[in-house]
Amino acid sequence: MNQRLEKLQSWMKENEIEVSFVTSSENVFYMSGFYTNPHERLLALVVFQEAEPFLVCPAMEIHDAKNAGWNHEIIGFSDIDNPWEMIHRSIQSRMDSIAKVAIEKEHMNVERYENLMKLFPNAKFVPAEEKLRFLRMIKDEKELKILEEACSLADYAIEFGVSEIKEGKSELDVLNAIEYALKQKGVTEMSFSTMVLTGANAASPHGTPGNNKIQKGDLVLFDLGVVVDRYCSDITRTVAYGDINDKQKEIYDTVLKAQLAALEVSKPGVTAQEVDLTARRIIADAGYGEYFPHRLGHGLGISVHEYPSLTETNPLVIKEGMVYTIEPGIYVPGIAGVRIEDDVYITANGARTLTKYPKELQIIQ
Amino acid sequence: MNQRLEKLQSWMKENEIEVSFVTSSENVFYMSGFYTNPHERLLALVVFQEAEPFLVCPAMEIHDAKNAGWNHEIIGFSDIDNPWEMIHRSIQSRMDSIAKVAIEKEHMNVERYENLMKLFPNAKFVPAEEKLRFLRMIKDEKELKILEEACSLADYAIEFGVSEIKEGKSELDVLNAIEYALKQKGVTEMSFSTMVLTGANAASPHGTPGNNKIQKGDLVLFDLGVVVDRYCSDITRTVAYGDINDKQKEIYDTVLKAQLAALEVSKPGVTAQEVDLTARRIIADAGYGEYFPHRLGHGLGISVHEYPSLTETNPLVIKEGMVYTIEPGIYVPGIAGVRIEDDVYITANGARTLTKYPKELQIIQ
Repeated sequence: MNQRLEKLQSWMKENEIEVSFVTSSENVFYMSGFYTNPHERLLALVVFQEAEPFLVCPAMEIHDAKNAGWNHEIIGFSDIDNPWEMIHRSIQSRMDSIAKVAIEKEHMNVERYENLMKLFPNAKFVPAEEKLRFLRMIKDEKELKILEEACSLADYAIEFGVSEIKEGKSELDVLNAIEYALKQKGVTEMSFSTMVLTGANAASPHGTPGNNKIQKGDLVLFDLGVVVDRYCSDITRTVAYGDINDKQKEIYDTVLKAQLAALEVSKPGVTAQEVDLTARRIIADAGYGEYFPHRLGHGLGISVHEYPSLTETNPLVIKEGMVYTIEPGIYVPGIAGVRIEDDVYITANGARTLTKYPKELQIIQ
Repeated sequence: MNQRLEKLQSWMKENEIEVSFVTSSENVFYMSGFYTNPHERLLALVVFQEAEPFLVCPAMEIHDAKNAGWNHEIIGFSDIDNPWEMIHRSIQSRMDSIAKVAIEKEHMNVERYENLMKLFPNAKFVPAEEKLRFLRMIKDEKELKILEEACSLADYAIEFGVSEIKEGKSELDVLNAIEYALKQKGVTEMSFSTMVLTGANAASPHGTPGNNKIQKGDLVLFDLGVVVDRYCSDITRTVAYGDINDKQKEIYDTVLKAQLAALEVSKPGVTAQEVDLTARRIIADAGYGEYFPHRLGHGLGISVHEYPSLTETNPLVIKEGMVYTIEPGIYVPGIAGVRIEDDVYITANGARTLTKYPKELQIIQ
């Protein structure tokens, strides 16, 4: 039994949960090593306190599941089978009565829930996702290695993007060139829609890349991430094209100062709230408090947004093994939009940055 | 009230459903004209038999919803509001007792369902999706125009892809070049992961594009689609690079003959089954029955797979206004993989193809 399953089983024992249904692709992957998106077809990892877990997937994917390293039982169903009956039989062969079942309530749909309720008419259904989020929050060595590679490709993407900045090019020109260059490096998936925003567009926290041309005196904001072996990186850099004015520089310096301070304070034992507020106070003290409308950062891993959430109010204590973004921003309409974002890994001694592209203000001539 | 809402309301009256919750992005878009993917946040269109419908969305999207043409009530909630309480009040202002509620059971998750059950503890919950699928199956003039444009861009993508075939290029080289060319034309989203498959890889119905080099004597299979204004096109063409052998030619001719026959038979009044079997019999008679392992086609529109489903067993009657794919294929391991796919629109007189790239065997030298 792998360690992740063992941790879920301990939680089940503590909470007297006899069966857990893990059903989202991300959580099944985390628990079993097997990733698939079966769309409308069922996927489930069924876990017990002691008995052997089993995986339920379309029959044509059994081979892939084994190849991915899943060496426990697999129930493969065809399009004419009833997977719920097969699940019922497999559970009954392991145990008699079920009083409490954990499910991913934010993932499982009502149709499946109704099937489960028919199988276990007397069971109480409790949510599983919070536990799974806490498990995924602490990364192991293998996950860290993959994240390092994803971050290194994100660095490359920024470097390439900056080299593409030229008078007359549009946001979409630069964006397409970056993604094309990444594909040449074997990247097949981005963590989210790549952002290249310039001028007024960068000054909106919800800007969308378009046909705006890059002009001298503009700031250009890149926000992108690369998926490697299902793990996401996420980086933001803002550079100047030609000389920018003092106000723009002041905004840049403030964001950078806030970002570095949050990095410095990030270590085991502080709270997520303290990390957020460290950056937020610097921005507020410089007079830009109202122009920093979002949280400081978020955990990342198999999902591009996961725990911990770095907000002004989250009392969660930072621990060794967490990976999260630190991404303060200031967006002043008509003047400037600046965000600087690193991905960090928390060691016993503090934060180690996984994204390494330089952060001092770059002026492209 | 728009016609689509009126049709849903008629169905609600016939089935004594007091309230319908439309919650998937695609169905909310179809019913309201407003598309958004609010991720973990709630989106719902709440429809009544007579009373004014209302839309529930994050407050920051109210403006976009109005711009998209939604001119009924909108309930915008912030991250600190409880949208369920707001929904409850709005429903209570319209009616007293609710006995039957339609929801998208395949879309709504258990967490939301539990909230709804608390609001309507005595209600029966029935599925809404089948009705919505049937509504979406018949396209209007406006939808047809958008689909024509999406198909025209798919034609362009095939033309461009074919022009990129050269000795030594890999599947991914050609694929990336196609997507880059489409981006230059303003395309921001593909209907699904583009396929460029060659040689042995094309001979698997589940091949994935990779670093396989295109070689003389290979067939090259393109399967791709373009999204325009949220509507998807879907085209497949197979071309020869250099001279191919007689067996490969025979397979190509068989697929083309099956495709043309299914096109010819497609008209109002025949069943989906008859259309599928028309193609399937031709392939079976040529001795390739076991090498055509999938259905003949599927409806398309806001989703790339929707109703009607063209299978050997579906008794559904074809009607004017349907749009579906006709895509027979033969995959003989080690010899050839050929699929030819058009998108068709059903008129009173028969099928009109929306994808127009030539289908006779092309030999690229």
